Amino acid sequence: MTKRYQLKAICGKARRGSFRTRQGIFQTPTFMPVGTRASVKGVDVERLAELGAEVMLVNTYHLWLRPGHERIKKVGGINTFTGWKGPILSDSGGFQVFSLKGMRTLTEEGVEFRSHIDGSKQFLSPEGSINVQQTMGVSIAMALDECPAANIDFAAFEKSLAMTFRWAKRSLEARTDPELCVFGITQGGCHQQLRTIASEQICSLSFDGFAIGGLSVGEPKNQMYEVLSYHPDQLPADHIRYLMGVGTPEDIVEAVSQGVDIFDCVMPTRSGRFGRVFIDSDPPFFNIKNSTFAEDTGPIDPSCRCVACRNYSRAYINHLFKVGEMLGPQLASIHNLTHYLTLMRRIRESIEDGTFPALYAVIKERWRTLDLHQGASAAE
Amino acid sequence: MTKRYQLKAICGKARRGSFRTRQGIFQTPTFMPVGTRASVKGVDVERLAELGAEVMLVNTYHLWLRPGHERIKKVGGINTFTGWKGPILSDSGGFQVFSLKGMRTLTEEGVEFRSHIDGSKQFLSPEGSINVQQTMGVSIAMALDECPAANIDFAAFEKSLAMTFRWAKRSLEARTDPELCVFGITQGGCHQQLRTIASEQICSLSFDGFAIGGLSVGEPKNQMYEVLSYHPDQLPADHIRYLMGVGTPEDIVEAVSQGVDIFDCVMPTRSGRFGRVFIDSDPPFFNIKNSTFAEDTGPIDPSCRCVACRNYSRAYINHLFKVGEMLGPQLASIHNLTHYLTLMRRIRESIEDGTFPALYAVIKERWRTLDLHQGASAAE
Repeated sequence: MTKRYQLKAICGKARRGSFRTRQGIFQTPTFMPVGTRASVKGVDVERLAELGAEVMLVNTYHLWLRPGHERIKKVGGINTFTGWKGPILSDSGGFQVFSLKGMRTLTEEGVEFRSHIDGSKQFLSPEGSINVQQTMGVSIAMALDECPAANIDFAAFEKSLAMTFRWAKRSLEARTDPELCVFGITQGGCHQQLRTIASEQICSLSFDGFAIGGLSVGEPKNQMYEVLSYHPDQLPADHIRYLMGVGTPEDIVEAVSQGVDIFDCVMPTRSGRFGRVFIDSDPPFFNIKNSTFAEDTGPIDPSCRCVACRNYSRAYINHLFKVGEMLGPQLASIHNLTHYLTLMRRIRESIEDGTFPALYAVIKERWRTLDLHQGASAAE
Repeated sequence: MTKRYQLKAICGKARRGSFRTRQGIFQTPTFMPVGTRASVKGVDVERLAELGAEVMLVNTYHLWLRPGHERIKKVGGINTFTGWKGPILSDSGGFQVFSLKGMRTLTEEGVEFRSHIDGSKQFLSPEGSINVQQTMGVSIAMALDECPAANIDFAAFEKSLAMTFRWAKRSLEARTDPELCVFGITQGGCHQQLRTIASEQICSLSFDGFAIGGLSVGEPKNQMYEVLSYHPDQLPADHIRYLMGVGTPEDIVEAVSQGVDIFDCVMPTRSGRFGRVFIDSDPPFFNIKNSTFAEDTGPIDPSCRCVACRNYSRAYINHLFKVGEMLGPQLASIHNLTHYLTLMRRIRESIEDGTFPALYAVIKERWRTLDLHQGASAAE
């Protein structure tokens, strides 16, 4: 059996590779559109494929509660259910559960919590999380980890890491389907010592890939970049590396330059729904709702060929937002996803031909004074 | 110059034809998707073309207030603005203004009303309405008519018709662009005597087409069908005939059987947003939100090839509605529009090959006990 992760080219630390799953191979670096409740908001799967997506992310917490993993299995599994034929990665559900402040109780066994939908008592354990993900039939499952609050003290963080390590082992043991990929996650916040411990522990286990958790959760941009300067190097070079919940185009080129391969974030769709659109220009985004654009006959981005840019003017999309037409958020979301996926394609090409540093410099320059870090969430 | 309406085939009273506008020719009978605020809710123009639409309808009242006809002209006209390259028909704005009960004052000159958006005073006259439509650059403009309440007495109705006739003449005189088609509208409710007067008056003017107004506004189905049994015959056979704001698939085959050529209705999109989906079966619709469909692995309609039916199960779309994902309303709207446009194609083919009576019988049988008449509105 060939290895799942194949490295094809390197440019500095930036890696051009591919990853093999039961549902097909995807090229890296890549960005995964977020389909929280099994739907990338406002975007059908044909458009999603057209704009260049190769992997979709779904949220275990939401699908476990509704419609339930058993039901998804019954109607043919997550690919049939979502209509997405390519690879699908699910998170562990932990991030959402740990966000339910005051509604959860943590033990060695797992987390007891109350559903945000009906208040019913639920229990999430490492085995339970893998079971839900495996039953849905995803390509890649994430191990359940504890996501501690950023402000806990060092000793508590060490304790948390130790439990996450035990949970990681339990997660791997819970897999019964040999074709299911399982990724481990490192925590440790912005503490280099903890990140080092976490990577030594998690990378000692036979995961199919390694993810960096606990970043882009509200910390300043420079702190995240500091972690990225050493932490990807602590993960095995022959495995895929995933930076969870990140981020802006700048974050992505920064992380790629440090050897990260895959990303996911609600930013392109969530921003889009609020009218923020990303462009291949300086400044790199604007809000289409601004009345400046009410008579602007150009497309959102002249260099873009998405369904929004090939059919509509800024004036029209500004109008859609003003009058509350749902086509506005739809078009802005599709445009932003196209922007992200086009950036990923350009990153891949630039690593292959050795021009990644030039692309990196352009993106960094455009974002030099901008910071959209606001404590992103992994679902929307 | 060839005539705008070309009759190609007849089957009983049903007519197979085409209509020529500056923005292209469309085939009749046809159905016009409603783009109230210059957008067919949730459907981009590429999908709209794919599902078989040839003409789009927009609402003058809404676009006049936001973003304004002058602004639409400034950014390139209604085709450039909406991205829809084919013919566009606009209503006169009258239907919406007459729906603003207690906020309007009618005089011979026109209607004074207050905007539903900001309460500002506005004035709609026959000349003003044509000016707004002409300035937007639509293919087909509708003359402003008075839409009286269904319960006014006969004498008041006669007076109303007389004014609508004077307004019709003013509307025609207000046209300055010779390539703009203008359609006249008959009123008269369900009174045969008034419909006869209205058709004699309106059809004495040199309109490019004739529309039947004041039906499908809450009257019982059988009353509307009674009017359809004689009134289309009162309109000139060498001109296109338009039944405004209609209706269900049954209404459409009924009206086609009486010689009507074009239709518009919010039913496919509005119903779709609430989960009602139309199918080529008996019964002819169901609500996808019903929990019966939570584990149904089939498409909405096995005979349909729309983006919803070729990618997704009933179970998935049921889930989307349950969790409030916008993709649910989008898919149901696209499916319903596809259902309507496919019906229109089948109607056209059946008139050509003489099998329209068989198609008519099938549709009528499916709807024999059903009535969705609820006082539809011309906008959404």
